[in-house]
Amino acid sequence: MAKLLLSKIPTDAPKSFKKEKTKKDTKKLVKEIGELTAKMHAEKKHSILVVLQGMDASGKDGAARKVFADCNALLLDSYPFKKPTEEEFGHDFLWRVHKQTPGKGQVKIFIRSHYEDILVQAVHKWITPERVKIRMEAINAFEKLLEKDNNTTVLKFYMHISHKKQLEKLEERKTNPEKQYKFNPQDFEESKLWAQYMKQYQYAIENSQVPWYIIPCDQRWYRDYSIAKIVLGVLKKLNPKLPTLKND
Amino acid sequence: MAKLLLSKIPTDAPKSFKKEKTKKDTKKLVKEIGELTAKMHAEKKHSILVVLQGMDASGKDGAARKVFADCNALLLDSYPFKKPTEEEFGHDFLWRVHKQTPGKGQVKIFIRSHYEDILVQAVHKWITPERVKIRMEAINAFEKLLEKDNNTTVLKFYMHISHKKQLEKLEERKTNPEKQYKFNPQDFEESKLWAQYMKQYQYAIENSQVPWYIIPCDQRWYRDYSIAKIVLGVLKKLNPKLPTLKND
Repeated sequence: MAKLLLSKIPTDAPKSFKKEKTKKDTKKLVKEIGELTAKMHAEKKHSILVVLQGMDASGKDGAARKVFADCNALLLDSYPFKKPTEEEFGHDFLWRVHKQTPGKGQVKIFIRSHYEDILVQAVHKWITPERVKIRMEAINAFEKLLEKDNNTTVLKFYMHISHKKQLEKLEERKTNPEKQYKFNPQDFEESKLWAQYMKQYQYAIENSQVPWYIIPCDQRWYRDYSIAKIVLGVLKKLNPKLPTLKND
Repeated sequence: MAKLLLSKIPTDAPKSFKKEKTKKDTKKLVKEIGELTAKMHAEKKHSILVVLQGMDASGKDGAARKVFADCNALLLDSYPFKKPTEEEFGHDFLWRVHKQTPGKGQVKIFIRSHYEDILVQAVHKWITPERVKIRMEAINAFEKLLEKDNNTTVLKFYMHISHKKQLEKLEERKTNPEKQYKFNPQDFEESKLWAQYMKQYQYAIENSQVPWYIIPCDQRWYRDYSIAKIVLGVLKKLNPKLPTLKND
């Protein structure tokens, strides 16, 4: 298999996709996702862990909001990865993550994820390369456990945005009053480390046993479409059925 | 290395150990454990996870009570493994376990442990041999994560009691008013599966990456002594130091 190189993958929507038509198609996908997850919730055999991982302003929150818009509150939950608390720092890096994994019948969305602990921490050299390797192995074992011991599909999306588009979006947070609540001057500092981050993402994607989906994110409408398409494909494969009195 | 066979290992105290002298020695060890764990707690660099795993009446509760008698409440905690709740059953088998791991500076005692999920469940054929293997691998990765990512020493004790002594102890629970609260008729049923349990213990011990200590438990005073000796040895190696203003 040819090596996947992030730098060679477009961050733009393919030319053949038109915005208005794609948005309409996405709506249908999102509706079907709502219906099938409701069945999955009733059946309580499977669960889905959605990982939305990407640079600042790559569109993680928006993707979560749009793709799962028709899922009901009983089965849907999200966990935004913030700076660990003192108690969390006193444990291994997966301690706070494991607690947050979905129970059978549930969809859980990670906004950022356990990968932060081999991305940010490696880029800033807060941990040694040896420790990064240990953590990568631990992540592989952890995701395998979820898949094999709890029928959890781990769906990982790398939110692929160009550096240029990121800077535009970060600037927009300064000027657009509706987005100012997201503004953080520190994001510009992190943005300067773009090349180092890309190197670490490349490492994480290459060394993951559960594969990643690379989602071109420069156009939000294409982002929503691609993620919804993949999520729905997984749900169709799980093929959840409403339990009937007869089966029970 | 010669293969360790549980059936070849005595469950009795070695002849050279005398009860009264050993009890006195244990007291000293227990006191030192209290002192060193207090330092470990102040230093907050390391943690210890003590696994007490064995058949019914093998002496798990007693060992926890005696060996850690001089540890203070700030740093000590125990978790008895009962039947999982519905929420716990809805997750992978390590979900409830991971939450219970010790933070830096802490000692946590597992009364039974995550090994139950490859012991009871395998003996009763509630899970396939393939699933047992997947879980064994997950346990190895999990214990490695605790050791490598959080400086947690995982100290596993197999509480080695003879079948004959077990039956005596279970009978005692019927007649001794102070022990009747522990009586459970189901224990006699499980006891009939002794050979199958021994086979599964043998499997778990052989396939664990973090090694087990086999503790002869027919005499409770020797059990306490052997466990205390090992715990203290580990603490001395960790060599915890009270932080001083200068170091901080």
